[in-house]
Amino acid sequence: MRMYDIILKKRRGFELSPEEIDFFVQGYTKGEIPDYQASAFCMAVCYSGMTSAETSALTMSMARSGDMIDLSGFGDLTVDKHSTGGVGDKTSLIICPIVASLGAKVAKMSGRGLGHTGGTVDKLESIPGYKTSMAMADFMKQVETVGLALIGQTGNLAPADKKLYALRDVTATVDAIPLITSSIMSKKIAAGSKNIVLDVKTGSGAFMKTLEDSTTLAENMVCIGKACGRNMTAVITDMDTPLGYNIGNSLEVIEAVRILRGEQQDDLYEVCVVLATEMAALVLGIDANDAKALVLDSISSGKAYEKMLEWVAAQGGDTSVIKDTELFRKSKHSLEIKATESGYIGSMNAEEIGKAACLLGAGRVTKEDVIDPAAGLILGKKKGDKVSVGDTLATLLSDDENSFEAAKNIFLGAITFSETKPEMPPLVAKIVR
Amino acid sequence: MRMYDIILKKRRGFELSPEEIDFFVQGYTKGEIPDYQASAFCMAVCYSGMTSAETSALTMSMARSGDMIDLSGFGDLTVDKHSTGGVGDKTSLIICPIVASLGAKVAKMSGRGLGHTGGTVDKLESIPGYKTSMAMADFMKQVETVGLALIGQTGNLAPADKKLYALRDVTATVDAIPLITSSIMSKKIAAGSKNIVLDVKTGSGAFMKTLEDSTTLAENMVCIGKACGRNMTAVITDMDTPLGYNIGNSLEVIEAVRILRGEQQDDLYEVCVVLATEMAALVLGIDANDAKALVLDSISSGKAYEKMLEWVAAQGGDTSVIKDTELFRKSKHSLEIKATESGYIGSMNAEEIGKAACLLGAGRVTKEDVIDPAAGLILGKKKGDKVSVGDTLATLLSDDENSFEAAKNIFLGAITFSETKPEMPPLVAKIVR
Repeated sequence: MRMYDIILKKRRGFELSPEEIDFFVQGYTKGEIPDYQASAFCMAVCYSGMTSAETSALTMSMARSGDMIDLSGFGDLTVDKHSTGGVGDKTSLIICPIVASLGAKVAKMSGRGLGHTGGTVDKLESIPGYKTSMAMADFMKQVETVGLALIGQTGNLAPADKKLYALRDVTATVDAIPLITSSIMSKKIAAGSKNIVLDVKTGSGAFMKTLEDSTTLAENMVCIGKACGRNMTAVITDMDTPLGYNIGNSLEVIEAVRILRGEQQDDLYEVCVVLATEMAALVLGIDANDAKALVLDSISSGKAYEKMLEWVAAQGGDTSVIKDTELFRKSKHSLEIKATESGYIGSMNAEEIGKAACLLGAGRVTKEDVIDPAAGLILGKKKGDKVSVGDTLATLLSDDENSFEAAKNIFLGAITFSETKPEMPPLVAKIVR
Repeated sequence: MRMYDIILKKRRGFELSPEEIDFFVQGYTKGEIPDYQASAFCMAVCYSGMTSAETSALTMSMARSGDMIDLSGFGDLTVDKHSTGGVGDKTSLIICPIVASLGAKVAKMSGRGLGHTGGTVDKLESIPGYKTSMAMADFMKQVETVGLALIGQTGNLAPADKKLYALRDVTATVDAIPLITSSIMSKKIAAGSKNIVLDVKTGSGAFMKTLEDSTTLAENMVCIGKACGRNMTAVITDMDTPLGYNIGNSLEVIEAVRILRGEQQDDLYEVCVVLATEMAALVLGIDANDAKALVLDSISSGKAYEKMLEWVAAQGGDTSVIKDTELFRKSKHSLEIKATESGYIGSMNAEEIGKAACLLGAGRVTKEDVIDPAAGLILGKKKGDKVSVGDTLATLLSDDENSFEAAKNIFLGAITFSETKPEMPPLVAKIVR
């Protein structure tokens, strides 16, 4: 078998066999196939696409390129969740304790953020003492006893994807559905959970800007996950506007705590209830209505909040900051951005607002950047809200006062005003089962 | 400017500016742009194509990436010829002396063969003493005095093309019209001739298998050459069957001599007359009928043959082998392949016959292989010829007797017999001016 022939076959529009795809994946991972052949192949896939069978084969080959975590000891109770990424997306912090409180086993590995605000692991690290890595035996033990463990990705989970993603990132071959699908799903398959719920974001702050593209991606991932023997649901949710009000690492933990305590019932709450419901439905094998009742009860009864405390404590985190979020370290400086006109917030570019938060210290631009856990911004108004002159649009928080000017400009450039209340897209656009 | 954005722009189907294309070509030549970005770009071009303006820009950028030979001192009398490559194609050896005898200035650089039978330079090296390299001043002087000099390609002619071609060759991105066009034309533009005639082969032994593809390539190259200020004609000729009867280096020189002496008037003769006619018409600014009369007279009067002797002598070659071709060193072994059935030769796969000749020692498989100048094969019959049992189909010639068995099998696999005379494609399918 030669990589040349595999590239040519794809270019000519023929379907590759699982053996051919595996030859590419294993050869590329081992460094036997050079980058220039892999990038030509990825570009051919961008144009010619891949069949479901090809995408499944690619996903499985990449999953098998490194460690495969064996969660079979937990039966069918394991559940994982993946979000395609958005601004202010702290849903994992909320729904994982909810479903764990309902008996699900959540053995979750999450990424760090790059190029925008922090990832779930960065957010959790704002809790003093929280350990984002642990020995595999301890990880499994915590899943068994607490029902939930959440750590950073281990070094050798789907290394083929890691290498290929870095290449795609510099060759303009990121946004091809079969490549995105296999990238996400290979890691999820390797991570071992039987049940997987995907949160596919759509809108200005999402990777997929249109509902059509988001639906295609969601359907593809569900199809591939099922082909790999997993129970799958994808929820397509709005990311035209940031989710919730807080953007920044400890700021998002604080907001998550409020949701779990039942103190905040907004767009973030609604999305979390839908995601947790779908997870519970898969794990418990019940219908969505019954699952939703359990989820709402878990929050209102305080069981979900108690599970969060148990989980954070199990991972060495200082629960006093959860119990009293005022104890989180605060930024040295703050700046309130006041409205200079009145009307409605007509649009809010989530991606740009993420950039403003990143500039304040909440995210990384390069891998080496250090995140400031307290930095970020708190929205005073969101899309559709009525605004009068002098209202606080947002509060910027940072240890670096010099970042305020630029962050403010980006923020103001990211919102538009309108005289009438804008049409609001549905928070949950579609559920793909 | 970033290469990433250029790749993405091409992938999105937008037209690149000349500045963007030049950024890629110069950056890639200097090693500032890595192979993996260049291969992704080439694959995007394979799918998205290029406009004439883009292809012109790519051609000019690659031409300017190295030395540009200045032939302006010869006015508009300079002429070059390029063939897209075929088996038994010795037309350059014939038409260059013809047009030089008519007053044209032929300053020609030719390549060596790889992966099939020898190139023009390999063929000329079968003449004892013939020098295929010389100082630029001597080269120019010979063009001035003899009207013809033919050497190997200098190291620094269109280095961008050299580097890019090597990459395309291993990434399945060779056969894209804009890339083929710019590859060929960049070298021709850099080589400096005002008039250029292209011999675009079509059929089983050609790179372009169909007349449609050959026409597209021919039209593209003519268009780009004109855009770069050259007078252009492309002749589309048949390469379903090898051209002439001899395949191998000295064997082809011998056949060229026979044509120039008026001793052989066959398909090879006919193609050479058409190509020489088009070259003379461009150089002398006359119509094709008048040019053809001059070409026929050049052969029949012996002027073309005399020009060949003058040219070979000027480059240090031993003209005694031209005057008496029996003096060429002969292969140690020969094998006649006899017909075991009767009928007509129904088809003859030129590419496969080229492989047989290569195996006998007439070509290189790797760059390091040494060519045997005397090796090759002489066809006894060609497509459309009537064959009786016992007729000689071909004579194999080699110093390596062990190669006969495999070469014979390839040869026999390359021809088919039919009961009736097959339809013969026209030798010259089309002329694109």
